[in-house]
Amino acid sequence: MPINIEKSLAELEKLGADLYGKDFLLTWEKSDKELKSVFIIAELLKELHAKNVPLDMFKTGLAVSNFRDNSTRTRFSFASACNLLGLAVQDLDEGKSQIAHGETVRETANMISFLTEAVGIRDDMFIGKGHTYMQEVAEALDDGYKNGVLNQRPAVVNLQCDLDHPTQSMSDMLFIKNHFGGFDKLKGKKIAMTWAYSPSYGKPLSVPQGVICLMTRYGMNVELAHPEGYDLLPETIKVAGNNAKKSGGSFKVSNSMESAFKDADIVYPKSWAPFKVMERRTALYEKNDQPGLKDLEKECLVNNAKFKSWECDEAKMRLTKGGKAVYMHCLPADITDVSCKAGEVSASVFEKARIGTYKEAGYKPFIIAAMIAACTKKNPAKVIQSLYKSGRKRVL
Amino acid sequence: MPINIEKSLAELEKLGADLYGKDFLLTWEKSDKELKSVFIIAELLKELHAKNVPLDMFKTGLAVSNFRDNSTRTRFSFASACNLLGLAVQDLDEGKSQIAHGETVRETANMISFLTEAVGIRDDMFIGKGHTYMQEVAEALDDGYKNGVLNQRPAVVNLQCDLDHPTQSMSDMLFIKNHFGGFDKLKGKKIAMTWAYSPSYGKPLSVPQGVICLMTRYGMNVELAHPEGYDLLPETIKVAGNNAKKSGGSFKVSNSMESAFKDADIVYPKSWAPFKVMERRTALYEKNDQPGLKDLEKECLVNNAKFKSWECDEAKMRLTKGGKAVYMHCLPADITDVSCKAGEVSASVFEKARIGTYKEAGYKPFIIAAMIAACTKKNPAKVIQSLYKSGRKRVL
Amino acid sequence: MPINIEKSLAELEKLGADLYGKDFLLTWEKSDKELKSVFIIAELLKELHAKNVPLDMFKTGLAVSNFRDNSTRTRFSFASACNLLGLAVQDLDEGKSQIAHGETVRETANMISFLTEAVGIRDDMFIGKGHTYMQEVAEALDDGYKNGVLNQRPAVVNLQCDLDHPTQSMSDMLFIKNHFGGFDKLKGKKIAMTWAYSPSYGKPLSVPQGVICLMTRYGMNVELAHPEGYDLLPETIKVAGNNAKKSGGSFKVSNSMESAFKDADIVYPKSWAPFKVMERRTALYEKNDQPGLKDLEKECLVNNAKFKSWECDEAKMRLTKGGKAVYMHCLPADITDVSCKAGEVSASVFEKARIGTYKEAGYKPFIIAAMIAACTKKNPAKVIQSLYKSGRKRVL
Repeated sequence: MPINIEKSLAELEKLGADLYGKDFLLTWEKSDKELKSVFIIAELLKELHAKNVPLDMFKTGLAVSNFRDNSTRTRFSFASACNLLGLAVQDLDEGKSQIAHGETVRETANMISFLTEAVGIRDDMFIGKGHTYMQEVAEALDDGYKNGVLNQRPAVVNLQCDLDHPTQSMSDMLFIKNHFGGFDKLKGKKIAMTWAYSPSYGKPLSVPQGVICLMTRYGMNVELAHPEGYDLLPETIKVAGNNAKKSGGSFKVSNSMESAFKDADIVYPKSWAPFKVMERRTALYEKNDQPGLKDLEKECLVNNAKFKSWECDEAKMRLTKGGKAVYMHCLPADITDVSCKAGEVSASVFEKARIGTYKEAGYKPFIIAAMIAACTKKNPAKVIQSLYKSGRKRVL
Repeated sequence: MPINIEKSLAELEKLGADLYGKDFLLTWEKSDKELKSVFIIAELLKELHAKNVPLDMFKTGLAVSNFRDNSTRTRFSFASACNLLGLAVQDLDEGKSQIAHGETVRETANMISFLTEAVGIRDDMFIGKGHTYMQEVAEALDDGYKNGVLNQRPAVVNLQCDLDHPTQSMSDMLFIKNHFGGFDKLKGKKIAMTWAYSPSYGKPLSVPQGVICLMTRYGMNVELAHPEGYDLLPETIKVAGNNAKKSGGSFKVSNSMESAFKDADIVYPKSWAPFKVMERRTALYEKNDQPGLKDLEKECLVNNAKFKSWECDEAKMRLTKGGKAVYMHCLPADITDVSCKAGEVSASVFEKARIGTYKEAGYKPFIIAAMIAACTKKNPAKVIQSLYKSGRKRVL
Repeated sequence: MPINIEKSLAELEKLGADLYGKDFLLTWEKSDKELKSVFIIAELLKELHAKNVPLDMFKTGLAVSNFRDNSTRTRFSFASACNLLGLAVQDLDEGKSQIAHGETVRETANMISFLTEAVGIRDDMFIGKGHTYMQEVAEALDDGYKNGVLNQRPAVVNLQCDLDHPTQSMSDMLFIKNHFGGFDKLKGKKIAMTWAYSPSYGKPLSVPQGVICLMTRYGMNVELAHPEGYDLLPETIKVAGNNAKKSGGSFKVSNSMESAFKDADIVYPKSWAPFKVMERRTALYEKNDQPGLKDLEKECLVNNAKFKSWECDEAKMRLTKGGKAVYMHCLPADITDVSCKAGEVSASVFEKARIGTYKEAGYKPFIIAAMIAACTKKNPAKVIQSLYKSGRKRVL
């Protein structure tokens, strides 16, 4: 859906959201106006990229990529986003540099930031750790900037933590917003955010948590469904409930995939580990208890196996609105008979939705770039306008 | 040999070769006109670089470097080429991201390409795999572009596969073309592409295959020589034979280094493994049969050792035209008494040719950049012209 | 301390130091005028960066980062410096590319340099090796440039070797020069470069060696103090002595931390290994004698432990001029009760000095950038002037 650039720029300026000098860690810390600004910037960047407008709002500057676990997709999304804005990515590799907490975080955050404009962090493995780490980095940067160590305060962007995955959920949102034709068209739409079976265990909670906390802000009817025991973090359940009340939507938790799929406009079936398990895993990791970790994995896989029926197949899809709900996934999906014997989704359901899921992912570089632009520019609309009007071409 | 820029630009435009939107995988898929275009662009870029003209035809954009085996030289050539054009290199590290075939290739190819303009792949270890993998990536990108997932279709460049090593053979070609003073001067020149002894085993076949398939197109007399059993892939032998017929040159296979060196204008002595061995090795790798791989290595080294006399030494060089054939190598060479006890070339022969081999290698970044430019620009001559006329300096 | 840009540019031009086409390996190979030029350029770059002036004096070009041991800080400093100037960093990873000495150095240096403008090397582990390796690389580049292999001669920058750590000592110097209000204010100031206890062993000698050889050039009274046996390389002691004589300062070696701290204006307490130990360690590494290395480590840690009192604590700080000497450290420091049980500095001393040490480190990217600019530009003042006057903004 092409956008009207002048109109979007005017809307962005009028919104007057002030993210300048801030970080982007959790969607629920941000006002509706702030989220809206990021969405508008992301769509402007996507459209202008397609129109061959260079968006290099930085002529030089580093972007630090700090991945505390592996990821091709998010790594490339971040690299793409930074490159689009003119920043050069430098990886902070902990294997090489052993980063601990406390003094070391404070010092390292400053040492890598003398010429840095953005810091992207992914730290989603351990309950109670990832978000806390990002806050520590942010405080260290405040301290360095305030004390004249840094010429500029780099923006910290959450590329997935234990609580939220804002670059994912906001990409998801742009995808469905464009699918249905506008944010206003989402009111009253039903989305089923459901657990699904996977032969692996220990997938992070931040995707479902991010989705229920964001989608409930747009008047949607959000149903979270999972087998008993596969709970998300209680605080995110609370956020989702409050958001639904405020937006005029609804939020419901059930233990039935079928109930959730019933008449759903959108389904988002995805595996995760119970937060109680994640807590136990975190404790075992802290003690470096390898046998304990192996036992936990075995226990969990046995438990998961009870719920192999939680697969998004053609039969369940027929329960949805007109039998043709939008299927969403953050990728990669565990596809039955393709990437595993039994997984989150059947091959035929996935194949029909495949291009859609690629497009869903395609918003992410622009969402990340928008977060960086919003957090580092006093007036992002003016900056984008000046690039648009420059007459330069991105590709000769 | 400095070139006339205006004349080269005019020639390029007149050629009108259309590589736009295509990939560069095998030289024998390309017409003479297409190869000629790449050569002209490469020499233009080299000359303009020397003249301090910025060649940043991309203001932003990623180039993905996908190396399925190690390489300093090609890695730096690719990085240099992309940087020259204004692209930022992002490594796709399979250790980090576990890339398999099928659905995963299709998905990953799209996930890394949202803002990507070129994908360089090196996958030369396994017979029957490398080229196929590159084709899979290319098809996945077609699929993503056609379906609106990608704003642009990145060009795939073969940085060495099981069949061909086009960036090497085309650099080799520019080196000898300039040595002898023009493509027309190559007609009737004899080149000896010969096996040579090395204390290691399992060197890829793509260099000799690439050389015999390319050099036969320019009316040269190409003699391929190797010990019995050290055959190249039969299909490349066929391509070379056909090319020779068409170009008015000749192609001959012998089992004597001396025969090949006799009156040669150019010698290219280099070790490789027999393709039958490479096939066995591929099968063993697929089964992860480590003892089998060790046995195969031992067997091959024993066999190699029978042919220690296949060294390019002063005596053999005296057999060549006037005793002073041009020595070529893709580097690094196994140099007797320097990098090993007994190798492909004697120290004195190598030392005389050393700077030449460095220059031969020096064309590679420009060949790679030319392939990317040719495959991503509708009218590369016009783009280069506009950079040349910009009055900007690459280095202040 | 903001600088007067026009005045600094005029001073730089007037100095007329000629570092163009040279490398930056050891401060004691450079004239006072040359060092002064690098300092001025570094401060100009820092000020102009703060003023949002783009300093991209290269539009394209690679900078090769060759780290023969791990380092987050120096790695980021180099990456930041190169990015500031418009260069893209490409890591030369020896794990991936197995670099040996001799022919391999010569060849690799050329293979990575076809489009390269600067090569930063860190090789500080082995006595007698690091500086020699850098010289080999420099000679290889001379050879390639002279013979027409390379269009340009990249500048080699020493990011720490076995002899010197010029980017560190020159950052240290800018820090104290600005603290005291000018180079002329340093005359007669006392600096205590002292050993300090650390629970690890084998820290390189290049920091203290670099500091005593540089600080003695500015009329300072330099006292080097360490436990008996913890000697630095004799040649650096000689350089420091000669420098002190020439500059009207003094250089003294003692075995008492208290003596060194007495009335010091500046203290720089830092652990290192005796050079005799480093020599033994180098020999053991060459033989890959792992048990020998373990024994040596044990022996050294036992010896170190005799000197736990060599900690920079509040009591020792009270011995300094007015009890408030400037505390310096190259970071990371071993902080008692923070990063270890007993270390180089007490937590309270470090906390008071912490922001200062961050600022000290903050000069490093600009010192590195200044070295590269000085070694690659005929007239750096003119280049910086043109960037300053361009009216462009680094960050829109």
